[in-house]
Amino acid sequence: MKVTLGIDIGGTNTVFGFVEEKSTHCRWTDQIETASYKTAQQLFKAIFEQVKEALHNRDDLNLVGIGVGAPNGNYYTGSVEKAPNLPWQNANIVQIVNSFFDLPVAITNDANAAAIAEMKFGAAKGMRDFIEITLGTGLGSGIVVNGKMVYGSDGFAGELGHTIVHEDGRLCNCGRKGCLETYVSANGLKRTLMELIASENMNSPLTQIPYEKITARQIYEEAKGGDRLALEVFEVTGKILGIALANAAACLSPEAIILYGGLVAAGDLLLQPTRKYFEKNLLNIFQGKVKIIASALDLNEAAILGAGALIWTEINNGKTE
Amino acid sequence: MKVTLGIDIGGTNTVFGFVEEKSTHCRWTDQIETASYKTAQQLFKAIFEQVKEALHNRDDLNLVGIGVGAPNGNYYTGSVEKAPNLPWQNANIVQIVNSFFDLPVAITNDANAAAIAEMKFGAAKGMRDFIEITLGTGLGSGIVVNGKMVYGSDGFAGELGHTIVHEDGRLCNCGRKGCLETYVSANGLKRTLMELIASENMNSPLTQIPYEKITARQIYEEAKGGDRLALEVFEVTGKILGIALANAAACLSPEAIILYGGLVAAGDLLLQPTRKYFEKNLLNIFQGKVKIIASALDLNEAAILGAGALIWTEINNGKTE
Repeated sequence: MKVTLGIDIGGTNTVFGFVEEKSTHCRWTDQIETASYKTAQQLFKAIFEQVKEALHNRDDLNLVGIGVGAPNGNYYTGSVEKAPNLPWQNANIVQIVNSFFDLPVAITNDANAAAIAEMKFGAAKGMRDFIEITLGTGLGSGIVVNGKMVYGSDGFAGELGHTIVHEDGRLCNCGRKGCLETYVSANGLKRTLMELIASENMNSPLTQIPYEKITARQIYEEAKGGDRLALEVFEVTGKILGIALANAAACLSPEAIILYGGLVAAGDLLLQPTRKYFEKNLLNIFQGKVKIIASALDLNEAAILGAGALIWTEINNGKTE
Repeated sequence: MKVTLGIDIGGTNTVFGFVEEKSTHCRWTDQIETASYKTAQQLFKAIFEQVKEALHNRDDLNLVGIGVGAPNGNYYTGSVEKAPNLPWQNANIVQIVNSFFDLPVAITNDANAAAIAEMKFGAAKGMRDFIEITLGTGLGSGIVVNGKMVYGSDGFAGELGHTIVHEDGRLCNCGRKGCLETYVSANGLKRTLMELIASENMNSPLTQIPYEKITARQIYEEAKGGDRLALEVFEVTGKILGIALANAAACLSPEAIILYGGLVAAGDLLLQPTRKYFEKNLLNIFQGKVKIIASALDLNEAAILGAGALIWTEINNGKTE
C-alpha cells in the first residue's frame, strides 16, 4: 500500500507518521523532542532512524513521498527561514530530506498543512475557497483560493495572526504592536483576562491565580461554570476575531472559515460570540453566506495528516515527477 | 483584425471601445450617460446602436467578445447585483448582451477589470501575485493570486475598501462604521481635512472653503504649495492606507500593490507616506520585498481596456468556446 510520510516540526515535539491517500487516520506515528537536536540534519537523522525501522517491520507499506510542516516553512524554497522557536532557525529541509531519501519532498508551514488536511480529510472537503485559522499559543492561517493553497509571491502568505488590529496595541513576539494573535490565541485570552481584571473589578476565582500560572483551559472551565469574568474574556475575544474574520471575508469571499486548534475545544463559548460579531461586521453582500465552523480533524493526528496530504497533493498534481 | 468590446458602466458615464489583444490603446471609444436609461436593456440598446455603427464603418474589425465592468458586477452569475449607484440596481448583463450579440460575454466589477488591465497592459505585466487598489470617490480592490483573478466563493471577493479599520469609526455608505474607504478615497481625504481642522487649529486657505465645495484636487494643490494642513491630510491618509496594505500583504504576500485612479495623480504626496507606514507596519519576513507602485495605465482608457481584457482572457483560456 502506498503511503506518504508526514512530519510536523513543533517548538516542543516533532511528530511523524504514515498517511494513506484516502484514510483520515495515520498508519503509524511516533515523536521525538525537537530541542534535543542542535541541527536540522541531526533532527532528521533521528526521525529517519525510527522511520526506517518502522518501514522494516511493514512490508506492505510503499513510501512514495515526504511532506513536512514547520514554523516558517517555505513551500517555494524548501527551507525553514528565521523560525524563532527552533534551535536551528534556518535550514534547507528539502535538501536534508533528499540526502536520506530519493523521494518527492515538500514543505510548508503548520497552518498551511492544517488547511491542506482540512481540504483533503476534514470540514473543507469539496470547498474551493476557505480560510483555515489555527488557534493555539499563537494564531496561524492558511488560505485556499480556487482549490489551491495561497503561498504568495515569496511562500509566506497567510499571516493573518500578524495583521494589526489595534494601532499601538499589545506588544507581539514579532516586535510590533497590536497583532491579532496578541488578542486571539491562548496567550491572548490570558492577556484579555488581565485587562478585564483591571477594568471591570469583578469577583472571580480567576483573580486569585497569578498570570504566569493561568491557562486558557482554566478560563474555559470557569466560563463553562458561569463565571462572568471568564465569559467576558470569550465575548471580547470573539468580538476581535469576528471583526478580523469579517475583514478577511470581505477580501476573499470564502465559502467557510474553519477554526482549528486547542482553543476550539471551548466550542460555543468561542464560536457563538465569534459568529455574532462576524455577521454584525460583515458587508451586506456577504451576510448569511459565510460559515464559521470548527475543524473536523483529530487534533492528535492533524499535523501529520496535513504534512502527509501536502505531498499527496504534489504527487497527484504531477509536480514532483 | 480581432477586437473585443470593453464596456465600463459607471455611476455617471458608461464608456466603451474596441480593445486589441496586444495594444495598450483602444481602437475607438465612445460614451453615453448612464442615468439617461431607466433599464439595463435600454442602456445596452443605446450602446450597441453606436457600436454597430462603428463596426459598419470599419470593415477590418472582427468583434470576437464583449467584456463588461460594472459596480457589483458578478463574474459567476453574469449579473449586476444590488448596485447602489445605478438606476436599475439588478440586471443579468450577460443575458442582455447575448440578446444583441451571439458572442462570448463576461462581467466583473470595475476594480477587478482594472486589475486585469494592469496585468495584461500595465505595471503588473508578468506578475502572478498582486493587489490592485482603485482610489476614486471610494476605494476598490482587485486581488490576483497565482496569475488568476480572485472572485471568491460568490464572485464578490476584493472588497478591501469595506474592511473595518476603526471600530465605531466614520459612517460609510454601506451602513457600517469605520470602513477603509471612509478614510482613504477622495471623500476620505475631505473628511480627514475636516477632522484636522477641528483638532489642529492650523492656519490654511482650506479653512475658508465649505466642506461641500472642497475637492480632493484642492487639497492636493495646497499640499503641493506646502500648506501644512493639506500635507497633514496626506500624511494621515498614507498612514491608514499603509497599515491596511501591510495587513493585506501579511495575508497574501503579493509581489506588488498597485495604486490606480484619480487620487494617484497626487504622486509622492500620497505614495511617500503610504510606503513609509507600509514598511513600518510590515511583518519582518515581508519587509523590503513588496513594491507599492503607481498604475501604468492611461486613466481615460483603463476601464475600457480592463473590460476588454477580461473577455480576451476568457477567450484565451478557452472558457467561452
